[in-house]
Amino acid sequence: MSARECEVTVVSSDVEKTPDTMRASVMTGVGALRIEDRPVPTPGDHQVLVEVAAVGVCGSDVHYYRHGRIGDFVVEEPMILGHELSGRIAAVGAGVDPTRVGQRVAVEPQHPCRRCTQCRAGRYNLCAHIEFYATPPIDGAFCRYVLTDDDMAHPVPDSMSDDAAALLEPLSVAIATMRKAHVAPGTSILIAGAGPIGVICAQTARAFGAARIVVTDLVASRREKALQFGATEVLDPTSVDVAAIDPVDAFVDATGVPAAVASGIKAVGPAGYVVLVGMGADEYPLPVAHIANNEINLTGIFRYTDTWPAAIHLVSSGAVDLDAMVTGRYDLEHVGEALDSDSDPASLKSIVEPR
Amino acid sequence: MSARECEVTVVSSDVEKTPDTMRASVMTGVGALRIEDRPVPTPGDHQVLVEVAAVGVCGSDVHYYRHGRIGDFVVEEPMILGHELSGRIAAVGAGVDPTRVGQRVAVEPQHPCRRCTQCRAGRYNLCAHIEFYATPPIDGAFCRYVLTDDDMAHPVPDSMSDDAAALLEPLSVAIATMRKAHVAPGTSILIAGAGPIGVICAQTARAFGAARIVVTDLVASRREKALQFGATEVLDPTSVDVAAIDPVDAFVDATGVPAAVASGIKAVGPAGYVVLVGMGADEYPLPVAHIANNEINLTGIFRYTDTWPAAIHLVSSGAVDLDAMVTGRYDLEHVGEALDSDSDPASLKSIVEPR
Amino acid sequence: MSARECEVTVVSSDVEKTPDTMRASVMTGVGALRIEDRPVPTPGDHQVLVEVAAVGVCGSDVHYYRHGRIGDFVVEEPMILGHELSGRIAAVGAGVDPTRVGQRVAVEPQHPCRRCTQCRAGRYNLCAHIEFYATPPIDGAFCRYVLTDDDMAHPVPDSMSDDAAALLEPLSVAIATMRKAHVAPGTSILIAGAGPIGVICAQTARAFGAARIVVTDLVASRREKALQFGATEVLDPTSVDVAAIDPVDAFVDATGVPAAVASGIKAVGPAGYVVLVGMGADEYPLPVAHIANNEINLTGIFRYTDTWPAAIHLVSSGAVDLDAMVTGRYDLEHVGEALDSDSDPASLKSIVEPR
Amino acid sequence: MSARECEVTVVSSDVEKTPDTMRASVMTGVGALRIEDRPVPTPGDHQVLVEVAAVGVCGSDVHYYRHGRIGDFVVEEPMILGHELSGRIAAVGAGVDPTRVGQRVAVEPQHPCRRCTQCRAGRYNLCAHIEFYATPPIDGAFCRYVLTDDDMAHPVPDSMSDDAAALLEPLSVAIATMRKAHVAPGTSILIAGAGPIGVICAQTARAFGAARIVVTDLVASRREKALQFGATEVLDPTSVDVAAIDPVDAFVDATGVPAAVASGIKAVGPAGYVVLVGMGADEYPLPVAHIANNEINLTGIFRYTDTWPAAIHLVSSGAVDLDAMVTGRYDLEHVGEALDSDSDPASLKSIVEPR
Repeated sequence: MSARECEVTVVSSDVEKTPDTMRASVMTGVGALRIEDRPVPTPGDHQVLVEVAAVGVCGSDVHYYRHGRIGDFVVEEPMILGHELSGRIAAVGAGVDPTRVGQRVAVEPQHPCRRCTQCRAGRYNLCAHIEFYATPPIDGAFCRYVLTDDDMAHPVPDSMSDDAAALLEPLSVAIATMRKAHVAPGTSILIAGAGPIGVICAQTARAFGAARIVVTDLVASRREKALQFGATEVLDPTSVDVAAIDPVDAFVDATGVPAAVASGIKAVGPAGYVVLVGMGADEYPLPVAHIANNEINLTGIFRYTDTWPAAIHLVSSGAVDLDAMVTGRYDLEHVGEALDSDSDPASLKSIVEPR
Repeated sequence: MSARECEVTVVSSDVEKTPDTMRASVMTGVGALRIEDRPVPTPGDHQVLVEVAAVGVCGSDVHYYRHGRIGDFVVEEPMILGHELSGRIAAVGAGVDPTRVGQRVAVEPQHPCRRCTQCRAGRYNLCAHIEFYATPPIDGAFCRYVLTDDDMAHPVPDSMSDDAAALLEPLSVAIATMRKAHVAPGTSILIAGAGPIGVICAQTARAFGAARIVVTDLVASRREKALQFGATEVLDPTSVDVAAIDPVDAFVDATGVPAAVASGIKAVGPAGYVVLVGMGADEYPLPVAHIANNEINLTGIFRYTDTWPAAIHLVSSGAVDLDAMVTGRYDLEHVGEALDSDSDPASLKSIVEPR
Repeated sequence: MSARECEVTVVSSDVEKTPDTMRASVMTGVGALRIEDRPVPTPGDHQVLVEVAAVGVCGSDVHYYRHGRIGDFVVEEPMILGHELSGRIAAVGAGVDPTRVGQRVAVEPQHPCRRCTQCRAGRYNLCAHIEFYATPPIDGAFCRYVLTDDDMAHPVPDSMSDDAAALLEPLSVAIATMRKAHVAPGTSILIAGAGPIGVICAQTARAFGAARIVVTDLVASRREKALQFGATEVLDPTSVDVAAIDPVDAFVDATGVPAAVASGIKAVGPAGYVVLVGMGADEYPLPVAHIANNEINLTGIFRYTDTWPAAIHLVSSGAVDLDAMVTGRYDLEHVGEALDSDSDPASLKSIVEPR
Repeated sequence: MSARECEVTVVSSDVEKTPDTMRASVMTGVGALRIEDRPVPTPGDHQVLVEVAAVGVCGSDVHYYRHGRIGDFVVEEPMILGHELSGRIAAVGAGVDPTRVGQRVAVEPQHPCRRCTQCRAGRYNLCAHIEFYATPPIDGAFCRYVLTDDDMAHPVPDSMSDDAAALLEPLSVAIATMRKAHVAPGTSILIAGAGPIGVICAQTARAFGAARIVVTDLVASRREKALQFGATEVLDPTSVDVAAIDPVDAFVDATGVPAAVASGIKAVGPAGYVVLVGMGADEYPLPVAHIANNEINLTGIFRYTDTWPAAIHLVSSGAVDLDAMVTGRYDLEHVGEALDSDSDPASLKSIVEPR
């Protein structure tokens, strides 16, 4: 896909000189953050230096902050969090078009090896050697400047806000999910969980043409939000037997809760799809007989490939509204508050602005 | 896919008694039509009798009317034309839920054998024994009543007009085309021809999420229409080298004109898709080296399978507007005028109302 | 696919007159069988009457015999078991080529409705209204004659034995499994369980071109058998950590044992496939994080569609040897012994000959 | 796929010192070759230096030699031909495991950019910036040493000859073709042309499980060869109407001759596949109505991705015999004779040995 709808203004004349050092919010331990001065890195071959404009707070950032690990990934050294980001190209390395300096970009936060079997097969998200922002020991984006490969810095149109450009990252998760769930015009889909990912998935399902979009959540206010953002129907799983609803073509779990996964799978009809997005325990019971007897296809999502062009189009065309999801805004000094904002049920998506 | 958004009102109390005979507009030779009395057929097992409300005029009807044949299909006996239709179930055969009487339906005009290799593989459109409305020697729908298999009579919501319900048939062609062209959010697509099929394809491409929709046509007023119905860009192929545009992911031909097909194929980038919808000569030159060197995937469309549920959703949700395409309306006595309405460049889609 | 390699001899002159009644081995309760006289059925439209030559004993027959149920399917009335069968066409119904009488056939034991959404999509194995031999309340084939739809009676070449023709049914399970496991030349595959299905899967994996075929089983003699039938490597899961083997592209479970399923899934590399064939508990723990982090595709098998032509080719070409798997042979009076033959570890596949 | 059947012996102790210069057979103009001394290149990052053992002569080499161009690719400077090669790793660059020195390898002769849209999608054969051996202006392998990326130097087992290892390249073309033709157990396939590619395709089709393999060729001796190498049936297109044979699931053209392509396409049944491998004119007539009315899928092959592991398995397992295809053997001084060997109808595949 080659969405080329961007009208991009490159204003290189107003580019200020890049400083040598920058401020960064560093996670120094569980629940501990400290502002540090760090050297501004220099772009290598095929790299660009991005001055960060906006960074979305993701559940995985919160999880590292509170628990110091996600599964096998353990934060053992001080690390900068944040991986949903937009900004402006401040400098370019060798092999990169120098007129890109000044360009506004959304950053795809992965750095694959490009040489392993998975990379060569087009599944660079599954690269055995991948480096991913804010996944130990790789630093993330709660700071003034970051490096990225030039092809991972996607130009965005002037009409798109910095916030929306940053949130193309969770939108990418939703796009990858819809592809694996085979959502197309007319599809019926069940989404468990009306947090940020569930809400973006509902919007994206609608944009992919889904006809029936059922969202479940325990919290009434979050169910309300889902209705605003594309759900055609919402259910409280404590009062409705989700497994017994009219069968759906696809089920997306955005909770990681075993009971939600099990009942969601049972709601899927013959030859349907299940995509597990929410992170939970390593191992838990699934309704295997229902999967086998109905030849249901179950898989999970581990990041994404080739989603930014589609994401840019969905936002530019108005099919998905990311700006309306932003409920809080913080500077580098208040990253801790940003990470804790999920304690407020009215919070949906927090943005950190390093400038 | 199981779009279940229909709010269907079945009003069986107001069903009038079905008469024994009906009036039909019969094509008796090239350019010749005659109103005849015909017996109203009786539904057999798993069949329903549909009282026809609206029938769209298709290019293939016009072609049979003017030339008496399309390729190997020759009109050798008097035949009723018309295969894009909606109506109301007037009677049902054995094995059909009797409460369906009175239901408003859109008719999928094919009757596959359900037993051959193609049918069993889910490709019932390619059934070797298929009977299709208004394809010799099978009668079509320019008459008061038709029979169809019950599963080919798709219930439509009250909110959908008879016209739109009839035009779900050409929309089905467009949906089948978009599926084969692998159109999804962010795709770029070139469509040759801004006639009824080109215009429906443009609308459908937009509904499938295409980001860039280029439509070519020789006629300025038709290019205008394409812009109204979803094109993001229109081109006059006599003044622009279509083969040299920024490469597209997919090309749909809705002209059947060799020059349009050749230049369109050359506009497709690596691993892209070509779908031939327009009917033309049996054999003509294609740019084979471009296809091979770019591993382009070329195929054609022969009707559709499993498109009505998606079509109903696209119209119900407002993503596709079929009513706005209707430019003429005729009764059974004026089928000839309906068939000739394409001589008016302002005409897009004509409807015959047999009642 | 249209394998047309059959040289079929139809000897209709030697067809004896079909009797009015036949002997059948009827399961009258858990562990109880009785020989009964039953009327020979008459073929309806598109049906054929098959004089049964050989019937393979399947694990599901044994399960019904011992437990009276499989999941939701409960044997509530006397029922004839057996669904892996070959025979000769004894009579044909309306709409069937009468020269088929005398033809040797392998029977695909399913009778789909051909009208529901799944049937129309080509997934007739998932038909909501399917009737399947020896699945309550439908009678199976431990008797002299059975009815089947004519397109489910697949002609077999003279060179194929009755036993092999009957065992095209479990081979069909293996073919459907290899398709879902995306096995192709060069693939590496792990198969848990060296019972009849595991052994046929190993043979079929080799025939599909798999390069590395690892089979696990607790029993040494069964591991030996797997090596004879295509495994390139066998493992005793009690002494080797299956989850830690060099990652495979695909894992097929033919045990239904949760520990085997869990360790097998963990042995699958990124973007690999898991197909669950063995029947076990309705619900048990799966390594969900491994599935999601590696975007593994998990599904199960519920019978098959369009497998007999491929199966006939695999056996005719010598790529799969079914005759060598037969370890016991029983008449109608000894169906109980046939069903209990799995108590002998040397038994692999038992055949019942109703004649 | 990860075929890991190679038992690879690395004998680094016997590695001789790499010289500074080497002899190369350079094409200096149409029909003109000259032996030149060239510097031996030094491997850069992630590169290896391969001492060439065997190089197959391909039709494209012959075409450049005779015509100086293939389509848009024009030989404008002296160039070394040859791109089907095997050898031994003589030296490695930075980032490559030094124990690979001495390893016997088959070389995948493409050098993609790994960064463009096609590369990132896993279609590195369609890379816009690709460098390919013996495609102007990139030198090929009729010389003593060549450079390649380390992941394009595939280790081969000791049991495989240098000739076979070189011919994994045309086998890769055949594997890519079978994948696009969707060949699987039971498939029927028509192959036009019994030259080297046609014969390898026949062998590969058999290895992929094709049940019916029809090969057409004008020359009786070549039809004979096709029968030896896997064809189940051969036809002389001058005496048989190929378009009228029992329909096939797939057609592969290995001639580039318009009449062969047209009749082959017409032999394909509904929903079948056509893959164009043979190079011919840029544009010629195709039976478009047959393609569209049968929804046939037509594409071409431009090299391959991820084929060497499968190719190594097919040869190692004996499913494909490449050694038996070698009919001539030449040293660097006789490359001209090797290129002209196709004038002998008994010649199938010539090998150049630069040592």
